[in-house]
Amino acid sequence: VNRNAAFIKEARAFLSESQVLTDPQECSNFGSDWSRLSGAPFAVALPESTAQVAALLKLCSELKIAVVPSGGRTGLVGGAVAGKDSLVLSLARMHFIHKINTAASTVRVQAGATTQAVHEQCEPHGLIWPIELASKGSCQIGGNLATNAGGLRVIRYGMARKWVNGLQIVTAAGNIIELNRQIEKNNTGYDLIQLVVGSEGTLAVITEATLRLTTKPQASTVFFFGVDSIEQIVALLSLARSRRFPLLAFEFFSRACLRSVEKELNRASRLNVDSAFYVIVEMECALTPELELWTESLVSSKIITDGLIAHSSDERKQVWSLREGITESLSHRGGIRKYDLSLPLITIQNTILEIENRIKILKVRADVFWFGHLGDGSPHLNIVQIKESTREDFDADCDRFETDLFKILLESGGSISAEHGVGLLKKDWITYSRTPEERAWFRAIKNAFDPLGILNPGKIID
Amino acid sequence: VNRNAAFIKEARAFLSESQVLTDPQECSNFGSDWSRLSGAPFAVALPESTAQVAALLKLCSELKIAVVPSGGRTGLVGGAVAGKDSLVLSLARMHFIHKINTAASTVRVQAGATTQAVHEQCEPHGLIWPIELASKGSCQIGGNLATNAGGLRVIRYGMARKWVNGLQIVTAAGNIIELNRQIEKNNTGYDLIQLVVGSEGTLAVITEATLRLTTKPQASTVFFFGVDSIEQIVALLSLARSRRFPLLAFEFFSRACLRSVEKELNRASRLNVDSAFYVIVEMECALTPELELWTESLVSSKIITDGLIAHSSDERKQVWSLREGITESLSHRGGIRKYDLSLPLITIQNTILEIENRIKILKVRADVFWFGHLGDGSPHLNIVQIKESTREDFDADCDRFETDLFKILLESGGSISAEHGVGLLKKDWITYSRTPEERAWFRAIKNAFDPLGILNPGKIID
Repeated sequence: VNRNAAFIKEARAFLSESQVLTDPQECSNFGSDWSRLSGAPFAVALPESTAQVAALLKLCSELKIAVVPSGGRTGLVGGAVAGKDSLVLSLARMHFIHKINTAASTVRVQAGATTQAVHEQCEPHGLIWPIELASKGSCQIGGNLATNAGGLRVIRYGMARKWVNGLQIVTAAGNIIELNRQIEKNNTGYDLIQLVVGSEGTLAVITEATLRLTTKPQASTVFFFGVDSIEQIVALLSLARSRRFPLLAFEFFSRACLRSVEKELNRASRLNVDSAFYVIVEMECALTPELELWTESLVSSKIITDGLIAHSSDERKQVWSLREGITESLSHRGGIRKYDLSLPLITIQNTILEIENRIKILKVRADVFWFGHLGDGSPHLNIVQIKESTREDFDADCDRFETDLFKILLESGGSISAEHGVGLLKKDWITYSRTPEERAWFRAIKNAFDPLGILNPGKIID
Repeated sequence: VNRNAAFIKEARAFLSESQVLTDPQECSNFGSDWSRLSGAPFAVALPESTAQVAALLKLCSELKIAVVPSGGRTGLVGGAVAGKDSLVLSLARMHFIHKINTAASTVRVQAGATTQAVHEQCEPHGLIWPIELASKGSCQIGGNLATNAGGLRVIRYGMARKWVNGLQIVTAAGNIIELNRQIEKNNTGYDLIQLVVGSEGTLAVITEATLRLTTKPQASTVFFFGVDSIEQIVALLSLARSRRFPLLAFEFFSRACLRSVEKELNRASRLNVDSAFYVIVEMECALTPELELWTESLVSSKIITDGLIAHSSDERKQVWSLREGITESLSHRGGIRKYDLSLPLITIQNTILEIENRIKILKVRADVFWFGHLGDGSPHLNIVQIKESTREDFDADCDRFETDLFKILLESGGSISAEHGVGLLKKDWITYSRTPEERAWFRAIKNAFDPLGILNPGKIID
């Protein structure tokens, strides 16, 4: 408590009043994210420059105060949740975006710039930073990189870590380090940029990044298919790839998701045949008669039950709204548990069936929703409380189920987190995705970067 | 010496005679690479399975024998050069390539598969592993990943590290670890795959990899331009990018390179105007009348001095042969020093001029050749002995020049190695690209992975 008071006094010596918040409501807001956990830090610092971030971290090192680096707080695993004796270090006021470097096809941004603001800066140049997230209006580049964000375009472009050339970081001790500065290539030793990307704020604070950009696709075609099994979806994926155009998206959702989102949007999908699953395929090419024939051949060969091609921009939006509306449509129903699975495509059908069976055997009182990035082997499983169950029963059911779920993932060669990260919520389960050697390496790396353990302590591993 | 004898005896208990070489000539071959250094290991082991690699590393750990993991040995910085009391662990016999996983668009390969063999496996599926290297017939996937190879397509696809989903590694202690197994996404802690990629065999031995593949471009157009200054080349790069088609390549070379390769090929280029530099641009699109007009406008606006579009497949090959023949054409001239610079595009013109000036001021008795990946800010500088100089004078001149060169790079925000790595040749200069904190992190990471220091010791850092 004295440490906290000392911090506030010293921080206010170099920050203005409005840059150090201590109001409990504000602290609680800044200490929580989109997970079901909430936080209560003793203060929030809002630095406006890298020098201020460095001064804050020096001060926290001296006082041994835990620091939770904070972006748009749209994470789902509690990575940005701040305990009561910790400081939230929000990058929100550091949101400057430099001019696009058109020769290098890069843009330098401060960590607090929102993903959407970066997209808007790129748009007039025909360029994209190809990380496409539902939360892009709120989430920030620093958070996208600290969590190695994925999203709807991973099948085409990979995760966020592939789209960063340089990072400016501040170490736990308060030193500013430029990793790669303005250059693209730097094969001189271990890749520290890739080590910091995805480290969930536990190794260093990202203050600036040089983002690699790419050309916006010239054309794309959106297909919407009904399919009767996961096996058929994987077959469809192979067939879609064999067209030899890049896939910009390959998303799926279950019948229950479609019903939920149709109810939410008060609008039915335009497919006529009721199917177990639905798939949106976006292909990087203009629509041709061959692709229309291909769609018909998929019906006649019984790969799909029904299908349509979105011809107008409105039709494309309508198809995509079915996928994009799912999370929102599930958010009003009481208790919800979200699992972000990563599975080998080769066994995904069996693993999903096994998980569904386990839910039945364990008598989990909940509705089950499957959707997400099947093309990457990364389905989201959402389990939602039913009216007939209480919140306590639902939580107890889910807790029982989780252990079994993670065992199934371990046996199938999958991972407990494809995109969302570990944070606090999945920390106890990391043994299901990482071996003892790997965890020992994590600890050694953490100790080298942050010997006092002040950076986002308790996240990923203890 | 007793340790070496003990190793040979014990290794022959589980390997056949032909898997443990001790012939001095063979040892010398396997202990050297394409750099100007050569090695003389006491033995070469040729394991045929991951289990054998693990057994060998266990044995080396017990006997504290230095191990130099070895691929195609096409590296240019001595990363694969083996000292006299070290063992070369060659992956050459582990070259199996599994069937393409068409749903996931990946292929699982053993580390000893050549890059070209992987390309050939992908070809019938319309897929590519987009790492394009002059040495692709010899270099191996394990080496491509251990050195984070670049090549001619980095501007479009990035370096090798972007095209790997999973790695099987064997640790210094002889444990086999699967990083990511068959999955694409795994946000559970620090990215150990990216840490091993580019570590030049100092952290672990790569035995298998799951490579991410992409669709082969549908069409491309090759341009060949004459340009009068580096500044104009950077302007051309911006203009080429503004066409909004992806650039598959943006390579340059100086007049001296053109003369050298023309002599070697006994054929003149088809450009009529003599220029200071030449640029090959390959754009991912079909040739259109607009692009022809664009080329004409580049001449009339004096961005380029002269230009042509390669219309036939033969013409494309002829243009590309000018770039591809440079290294070979310089190899018969006596002493040669190769520098693989990485520079920010924004200052590249001034930096190149400053380097040329320094060569003059220092009276380096050599011819100067510039070529390479200007689109990535990564020019190769080759300095070649002239007839009027002796080898001793040439080496002394270059040694004097190097310190100044690396100081210029440091001041310009560049790096001493874009692609080639550090190995032995650049180890003394790593301080010009990495801060003390970064080097301290390197040592901590190295120590965590290889506490006995047996894996490729003396490479990257001491």
